[in-house]
Amino acid sequence: MRSKQASRLLEQVREQKPLVHNITNTVVANFTANGLLAMGASPVMANAEQEADEMAKQADALVLNLGTLNDAQIEAMAKAGRAANEKGIPVVLDPVGAGATIYRTNAAHKLLNELKITLVRGNAAEISAIAGLDSDIRGVDASRGEYNVESIAVYAAKNVQASAIAVTGERDAVADKHDVYTIYNGNSMLSKVTGTGCLASSVIAAFLSVSDKLTEGAASALGYYGIAAQKASAYTNGQGPGTFQIQLLNALYRIDEIDFKQQLHIEREIVNRGGALHE
Amino acid sequence: MRSKQASRLLEQVREQKPLVHNITNTVVANFTANGLLAMGASPVMANAEQEADEMAKQADALVLNLGTLNDAQIEAMAKAGRAANEKGIPVVLDPVGAGATIYRTNAAHKLLNELKITLVRGNAAEISAIAGLDSDIRGVDASRGEYNVESIAVYAAKNVQASAIAVTGERDAVADKHDVYTIYNGNSMLSKVTGTGCLASSVIAAFLSVSDKLTEGAASALGYYGIAAQKASAYTNGQGPGTFQIQLLNALYRIDEIDFKQQLHIEREIVNRGGALHE
Amino acid sequence: MRSKQASRLLEQVREQKPLVHNITNTVVANFTANGLLAMGASPVMANAEQEADEMAKQADALVLNLGTLNDAQIEAMAKAGRAANEKGIPVVLDPVGAGATIYRTNAAHKLLNELKITLVRGNAAEISAIAGLDSDIRGVDASRGEYNVESIAVYAAKNVQASAIAVTGERDAVADKHDVYTIYNGNSMLSKVTGTGCLASSVIAAFLSVSDKLTEGAASALGYYGIAAQKASAYTNGQGPGTFQIQLLNALYRIDEIDFKQQLHIEREIVNRGGALHE
Repeated sequence: MRSKQASRLLEQVREQKPLVHNITNTVVANFTANGLLAMGASPVMANAEQEADEMAKQADALVLNLGTLNDAQIEAMAKAGRAANEKGIPVVLDPVGAGATIYRTNAAHKLLNELKITLVRGNAAEISAIAGLDSDIRGVDASRGEYNVESIAVYAAKNVQASAIAVTGERDAVADKHDVYTIYNGNSMLSKVTGTGCLASSVIAAFLSVSDKLTEGAASALGYYGIAAQKASAYTNGQGPGTFQIQLLNALYRIDEIDFKQQLHIEREIVNRGGALHE
Repeated sequence: MRSKQASRLLEQVREQKPLVHNITNTVVANFTANGLLAMGASPVMANAEQEADEMAKQADALVLNLGTLNDAQIEAMAKAGRAANEKGIPVVLDPVGAGATIYRTNAAHKLLNELKITLVRGNAAEISAIAGLDSDIRGVDASRGEYNVESIAVYAAKNVQASAIAVTGERDAVADKHDVYTIYNGNSMLSKVTGTGCLASSVIAAFLSVSDKLTEGAASALGYYGIAAQKASAYTNGQGPGTFQIQLLNALYRIDEIDFKQQLHIEREIVNRGGALHE
Repeated sequence: MRSKQASRLLEQVREQKPLVHNITNTVVANFTANGLLAMGASPVMANAEQEADEMAKQADALVLNLGTLNDAQIEAMAKAGRAANEKGIPVVLDPVGAGATIYRTNAAHKLLNELKITLVRGNAAEISAIAGLDSDIRGVDASRGEYNVESIAVYAAKNVQASAIAVTGERDAVADKHDVYTIYNGNSMLSKVTGTGCLASSVIAAFLSVSDKLTEGAASALGYYGIAAQKASAYTNGQGPGTFQIQLLNALYRIDEIDFKQQLHIEREIVNRGGALHE
């Protein structure tokens, strides 16, 4: 993929400051809001059933994150999602810990059934769980294995009621029924900071709010996020995950066109009719 | 204003370590507690209806923040507020997102009606919303416009059931029916970190707990906070909002009398009978 | 105590990546998760009653933290605790603010009565409160006095229904009915960052999940945590509590065998029959 389109999307986010409404978990809410601010978007966190739809109607994108779930929050998500669908803004679902407990898996399916979800982002184990693939889930953390993220994304894009799927990990993949993008940008320190996956979902939502191409927009967002992780790792210089977390926010803020040009590494393949990857 | 009084209030906070009870949103709770600790106050976060009043009775100041509202929290705020009023400690209301949804605006009005609020702090859009001024609110973020913060504060001080009003933004203003203070200290990076407004409200509450002059105490608090932002920006040296957030906590901790002397910039005007500013 | 055993426990945590299930408060959830990740454990935060037991059954240790309590959370804690007891994994109770409100004290006693608690960690005032010792509690912050942490730990180990007690402060003490360990590692900046006590409880839980000796395991955890605080203070170099918070995460990540060898300072005494310390 050419870096120009991806960096143009970031520019648009910074110019338009899209309002990204997050109904998310209490662990990552602060980090997510700061990440969105750092990239140039406008975060709003509003969980109450009483205002979820009114807030979503003002937003440019909606993120539903199942991290610290409860019944009231599922209801708020459904209401906000319906409002977002009516308005036609992108809705990103982050099924944190799907597969780890029945409660979470059911909540994910309920939202996928009731709403028009634009994109689901999760790790390999979470996406496998909601797509009905065998998986080995432990807590909300995927067991560290070697996953073929592209195959999981393609399979899920065929079998999950969402327009596109993003699977993140050592490599990331974004697929719909036609294309699959592999994103090679990223850094292993992302796994040492809580909420980096959740923030990736919100970064995708911000990009989708200014993009008219779904998978390309999402892949660009993950490329940007991966470059930020690479820069953050360089700034961190081995000090540790505390510093990396702070430098990730700095990098999201500072990345420019030249960084995209020098570092973006995304490849695209076409999905054949059977759902497998084209050789 | 003379810097000596303002810096004396900070000293008193550091000596007396006032207990500031915050019923606040899940996004900023950690940052608020750390900011209060850094300045030398003692934070306590306790949201449950079952203990809100008992906790407020032990506190030296109470902060009610509408950031991530729900019905149980409104009830806890009302209970804590009544206990605080009985005890006679300052109660600061932060109407996050007032005007953005009916639910938030109504909650703000309910608390203003039922409680004796010492001071309301918000951005120009939020204060305009609760004062019934025309405003342009989008999410919980004020549209960035050129506001006359002094006029909004003066208008709200006449029309909102609270003893004083603080409007924060590029400049800050604190008004009651008699005086209006303009605070010129501050830094634009404050708008790149979530919860900096919420923390300002809690810093005001800490100052009010040791001050016997309301508007002067609140203006001193915002002067201190603005100086901290200026120092944090200098320490940050362009690295980005991640670093700024950390340096703001450091600056709140390190500011001393000399910083006040060199940097405090607050001016006071008298409000005339019609509510307009005296020329 | 010899540093080798303590550093071996940290190695085991890093190798086995125990899943530590935290039902904790919204103020410290992010910091706790990041601290556990930094040390090499796997955090999971799941508060809902509907999944608390299912999640606890997958965990290697459970932490129940009363920081921002409500009725639903107490119920979730009881469910998770029963599941943890059935599975036989360590359950650490952190009675934040016990003694400060009746609601918190009652919740602590309810959990102590209904569950088999492996260890309770609190500051001197909190542990005194649940053990029925006179105490001077103000908010959730212990009044700063000179405490004999060893005596409080020994008294509580006799009088509280838990297998062991940890009292943290300037010095830390860990006791059961037979032994009491004093941990001399630590740094005063810990009191300037919110959630450092809560994180200590989760670090203990991680160590207990890989240790077959209760008090020795807990003392090792606090020694490790104290060394991390000392290193963080050195890295911070007087910049302030913002930087210290970040450097504490870095230190948890970077500490190795040599740090234990050079800095661990733990002493053990035998408790005599009357419950007093052996001379």
